[in-house]
Amino acid sequence: MTAESLADTHLLHPSALTDHDPVFTLHEQGKMEVRATVPLADRDDLAAAYTPGVARVCEAIADDPDLLYDYTWVGGCVAVITDGTSVLGLGDIGPAAAMPVMEGKSILLKEFGGVDSVPLCLTTSGVDDFVETVARLGSSFGGINLEDIAAPHCFEIERRLQERLDIPVFHDDQHGTAIVALAALVNALAVTRRQVLDTTVVISGAGAAGVAIAKILYEAGIGEIRVVDRQGLISRDRPHLPPHKAELAALTNRAGLTGDLTTALKGADAFIGVSGGTVPERALAGMADDAIIFALANPDPEVHPDVARRHAAIVATGRSDFPNQINNVLAFPGVFRGALAVRAERITEGMKVAAANALANLVTDRLAPDFVIPSALDRRVAPSVAAAVATCARRDGVARR
Amino acid sequence: MTAESLADTHLLHPSALTDHDPVFTLHEQGKMEVRATVPLADRDDLAAAYTPGVARVCEAIADDPDLLYDYTWVGGCVAVITDGTSVLGLGDIGPAAAMPVMEGKSILLKEFGGVDSVPLCLTTSGVDDFVETVARLGSSFGGINLEDIAAPHCFEIERRLQERLDIPVFHDDQHGTAIVALAALVNALAVTRRQVLDTTVVISGAGAAGVAIAKILYEAGIGEIRVVDRQGLISRDRPHLPPHKAELAALTNRAGLTGDLTTALKGADAFIGVSGGTVPERALAGMADDAIIFALANPDPEVHPDVARRHAAIVATGRSDFPNQINNVLAFPGVFRGALAVRAERITEGMKVAAANALANLVTDRLAPDFVIPSALDRRVAPSVAAAVATCARRDGVARR
Repeated sequence: MTAESLADTHLLHPSALTDHDPVFTLHEQGKMEVRATVPLADRDDLAAAYTPGVARVCEAIADDPDLLYDYTWVGGCVAVITDGTSVLGLGDIGPAAAMPVMEGKSILLKEFGGVDSVPLCLTTSGVDDFVETVARLGSSFGGINLEDIAAPHCFEIERRLQERLDIPVFHDDQHGTAIVALAALVNALAVTRRQVLDTTVVISGAGAAGVAIAKILYEAGIGEIRVVDRQGLISRDRPHLPPHKAELAALTNRAGLTGDLTTALKGADAFIGVSGGTVPERALAGMADDAIIFALANPDPEVHPDVARRHAAIVATGRSDFPNQINNVLAFPGVFRGALAVRAERITEGMKVAAANALANLVTDRLAPDFVIPSALDRRVAPSVAAAVATCARRDGVARR
Repeated sequence: MTAESLADTHLLHPSALTDHDPVFTLHEQGKMEVRATVPLADRDDLAAAYTPGVARVCEAIADDPDLLYDYTWVGGCVAVITDGTSVLGLGDIGPAAAMPVMEGKSILLKEFGGVDSVPLCLTTSGVDDFVETVARLGSSFGGINLEDIAAPHCFEIERRLQERLDIPVFHDDQHGTAIVALAALVNALAVTRRQVLDTTVVISGAGAAGVAIAKILYEAGIGEIRVVDRQGLISRDRPHLPPHKAELAALTNRAGLTGDLTTALKGADAFIGVSGGTVPERALAGMADDAIIFALANPDPEVHPDVARRHAAIVATGRSDFPNQINNVLAFPGVFRGALAVRAERITEGMKVAAANALANLVTDRLAPDFVIPSALDRRVAPSVAAAVATCARRDGVARR
């Protein structure tokens, strides 16, 4: 192989299998690259960026570890990490097959939040392995975005990593979804002239997203929350609840209702589906007047928006081809940008609610049943969310700068 | 904090401590960034790069794991990994303080080799921890560049990782240095009209670089190699040799010499210093006529080039301010570019020798005592090295493409 022939070829040669799908053409050789932000043209450049100059920077960080966040990219760089156990709607497809999603997340972080990031897919088994591996990477990143990790492991992984590391650990499938859902709900309540405290919300699904949504709604002061899983309403009386559901039971269903989704929805103001199942239309028919339905399963919502609209004043989905798209990209780029800006040690519940309120506020002057949340492409979103998150981090005492 | 004030500030604010050194100004917020290589301007772009389009790419990789190397950046991306135990001449300064060097390596890989890379600094203790952590990252990278890991751990780490992973694992402090030293030596032998087989080379230092240089010289057919460590000449008869020195003893010092560096250098054709100590001038005085002296310790060579020149026809150092700089950047970008181009499973000894020969050949038409190796800024180097490495990988049966 000559230097010329090597230079003429791509590094790698995609399979003919997938040649005719433009999505595959787009993904050839991936969707991102790194590049230098300093000049490397002459000897002086090399001497400053690399040896011998770099030794002075290393020594300064050895003397004062906090300078890591000033003189490397670490302070502005997030790891997007998965074990591939719960990828999109595809399930446990393993770490390698999850890489296209992690890359996508990385470029969205940069594009919308100005935050550098690195996609990492870990071949681990179980919580201990995963936690230990990521903890050892703690000096390399300013934050950890956990992604597509199956429940219930995701809860323990996030908690234990946050205990180990003094940088933000944020499981986007939980909190990104929760922040955007809360923002849309706040605006939907305004459109339907409801008060937060008087509102009853039913969540279908007690996985990563369902648990986080229930917690953020509780934090935001929603009057009554009911969570339904495959076995029905979660309540304090239900035996054999795993820890994450026991925690939900303590925060929700104050009336101690038992029964199925239809029971839960009777008279409810809002429904938030994050289950991936389907909701029978007759269950929705029992909701309050001017109900709110968020059917967030992707790509197939729990109920088709046209059907939902028969029973609700406001309908939102996870899809870009219907109004009111609940899209995580409205949250995570701004959350990380804000948290990194003040070197937050972690993301508090207050910071998540602040992010949701900032997001909701961006469209309060134009609210309508079909417009309760900004567009995923609205470039005002990440800076606004970041500013709110940074301010709240200081208020909550978790900002180091 | 408002969105505007956030946008106006840098993410982080460097300490006033280091404000007046231009090197620190250059390193502010690090030396690299990631960026998208696909458009993200509208809904169609998002749908193709992220959900729902990306799911098809994930499914294709789940069905055929080899497609990871076609449809993500993994096939063209190297991890630059350290534990911070042997950083430059600074020693065991820990993972965080090593980050500026790893970033520097990353940008050189991109700038000279067109290879993307990610700097990772691991908080690990011992070989098992390190190996296990990097092995779990194997699906995220097309190659592993180990960096600044102390001997003797570095030998076992590299060996065990290469056993675990089917991507190239390359400890640059060993093999990068060895490749460039061999290239310079081959040309120095030509200038001084020596034959490879008839040449005696003395290596001072049996750490990472010394061991690798001894092995590559053996592979390249150098007639006699002698390695000297702090205790003197390494020989088969010396008791209590650790494994990496026992391996050297088997390949070198066929005459079974014992004694110190002065003994070793008597009549020797070439000296290669990678010890960081100093060589007494009287020891160099005993070398053969038209001797070759490579004093590679940085920033202080084992002997000053002006002194070395009294006893040698050809002198090389690791420094850019003297002729004949032995700089690893002449090797690692091309080695990885070539290895990734053919998806090599590992870097064979033959590939290293091929890299050295390609590097040496670039300047054979202009050889002179003060010019036995190309400039670190010569842009022909990486493509030529890459082509040789790729060709040799195919010959050696380790190329997957």
